[in-house]
Amino acid sequence: MQSKTEVTLSKEFHFPVQIYYEDTDFSGVVYHPNFLKYFERAREHVIGADMLQQLWQEQGIGFAVYKTNMGCFDGVEFADIIDVRTRFYFDGPYRSIWLQEIWRPNGTKAAVTAEIEMVCMNKARSLCPLPPEVLALLSPQEPSEQS
Amino acid sequence: MQSKTEVTLSKEFHFPVQIYYEDTDFSGVVYHPNFLKYFERAREHVIGADMLQQLWQEQGIGFAVYKTNMGCFDGVEFADIIDVRTRFYFDGPYRSIWLQEIWRPNGTKAAVTAEIEMVCMNKARSLCPLPPEVLALLSPQEPSEQS
Amino acid sequence: MQSKTEVTLSKEFHFPVQIYYEDTDFSGVVYHPNFLKYFERAREHVIGADMLQQLWQEQGIGFAVYKTNMGCFDGVEFADIIDVRTRFYFDGPYRSIWLQEIWRPNGTKAAVTAEIEMVCMNKARSLCPLPPEVLALLSPQEPSEQS
Amino acid sequence: MQSKTEVTLSKEFHFPVQIYYEDTDFSGVVYHPNFLKYFERAREHVIGADMLQQLWQEQGIGFAVYKTNMGCFDGVEFADIIDVRTRFYFDGPYRSIWLQEIWRPNGTKAAVTAEIEMVCMNKARSLCPLPPEVLALLSPQEPSEQS
Repeated sequence: MQSKTEVTLSKEFHFPVQIYYEDTDFSGVVYHPNFLKYFERAREHVIGADMLQQLWQEQGIGFAVYKTNMGCFDGVEFADIIDVRTRFYFDGPYRSIWLQEIWRPNGTKAAVTAEIEMVCMNKARSLCPLPPEVLALLSPQEPSEQS
Repeated sequence: MQSKTEVTLSKEFHFPVQIYYEDTDFSGVVYHPNFLKYFERAREHVIGADMLQQLWQEQGIGFAVYKTNMGCFDGVEFADIIDVRTRFYFDGPYRSIWLQEIWRPNGTKAAVTAEIEMVCMNKARSLCPLPPEVLALLSPQEPSEQS
Repeated sequence: MQSKTEVTLSKEFHFPVQIYYEDTDFSGVVYHPNFLKYFERAREHVIGADMLQQLWQEQGIGFAVYKTNMGCFDGVEFADIIDVRTRFYFDGPYRSIWLQEIWRPNGTKAAVTAEIEMVCMNKARSLCPLPPEVLALLSPQEPSEQS
Repeated sequence: MQSKTEVTLSKEFHFPVQIYYEDTDFSGVVYHPNFLKYFERAREHVIGADMLQQLWQEQGIGFAVYKTNMGCFDGVEFADIIDVRTRFYFDGPYRSIWLQEIWRPNGTKAAVTAEIEMVCMNKARSLCPLPPEVLALLSPQEPSEQS
């Protein structure tokens, strides 16, 4: 396994999420488990919903959240359009690590930060290696080519 | 098909639901789509989660909501323990009709009312008749309000 | 009050919603209460989140769902990008009626339809008339002008 | 601040949660952000929904999640009745630390584990010290595991 200083880190992806009634609770700000939803939506846009659907239907492979480490530093409010920032790297043949942040409009620091560890699983929920289609997302020559 | 005046209506079931942060939005009361969740939880307790799981896993049969007609007459608040009241009847070989209400503690009328029409479907989402296990929930031997 | 044949019906608005993991349940399709969320998101885009926030913070006025009548005719799947179609009209000084549909990609008919009746309420949850800012959304001369 | 070996740790609380359709996604198991919901419900039962409501309405004090560290080791399925196990301690005048686990029926180890750091905030979202009512939940007279 590579040491972390040598990993290939993806570029930073940006994904906007608008905050609706459904996202808030009576304290007036976003209900905290919803941040994990926004992080997942952003990951799906990085990998591609089509690829996720194809992996599941054709190969029976899905992504599962294994560990999450989240800090909530600022409240996010109704009508905010947040910027979900995402970078990721592969950690060995099984794991992907996702570094994600939520920025409010005009924010000077991240409102929420998370490190999320994902693994690939088959439908019997056994661990399986990251498929080539996914590994290709971080090929050394971007944009990736099939070899 | 029977006329509605002749249907066998189930007894009234009561199911308590406590309202948590997750249920409310920033307006201070329960976010309205959540009422459909509580109605479904109550229906699952009438049919039995075990039977639902067995029908799905062994026969590939599930229940799908076909139509809902809901009225929201009063706000429901954090920390309320509501009473979800449920009665149902079968309407022909395919459909079950659920008459459900939400009552707040010390309420003098229902805060929310709904009439929900369910159908049975197989995994290919084709209509299938109500299975005998479900029809037996309203067997003639059971005490019921109308016969 | 106008008869319904004479109401001013808005144009049709289109709002796309992508279906994520969070939207589905183990039956493989969208969990039905979530359709009410998509309808609300679409309504918020018609009225404008900024206007909604301003009405709430400056005048203490919010919109509440009073009645919903929904039909679910087709399952909606993970990775679908649905088109939420919205038209509305005002029914007297207090109520707005929203005619909304969900169309799947390449759908030949609506997968879900709904008629949703909204009322305006203050923070004490008393009915209040539709504010001029909202009525202006349907002024006879579109785009609206202040008079 | 006390060293962690000297903290007063609460007894272990148990709180059952039944898994409904709404809790799962199309992969067939519970959608991971929902685990944070169950942990919060369990915390609300330890503190008491009435006390939470009173603190908010009378003193304007609420609890906010500051950090969460969660591991998801096993899938949780529809119709499971899970056992949410909760212990907590205070870490200085502002913070409470919650050690929580989810156990499936007949599980031999925790399916999900979490360490969740909560802070108290007023309505302007400024940090405020844990109120005496809350501190009293861990009074020395209470039986606890370490003293």
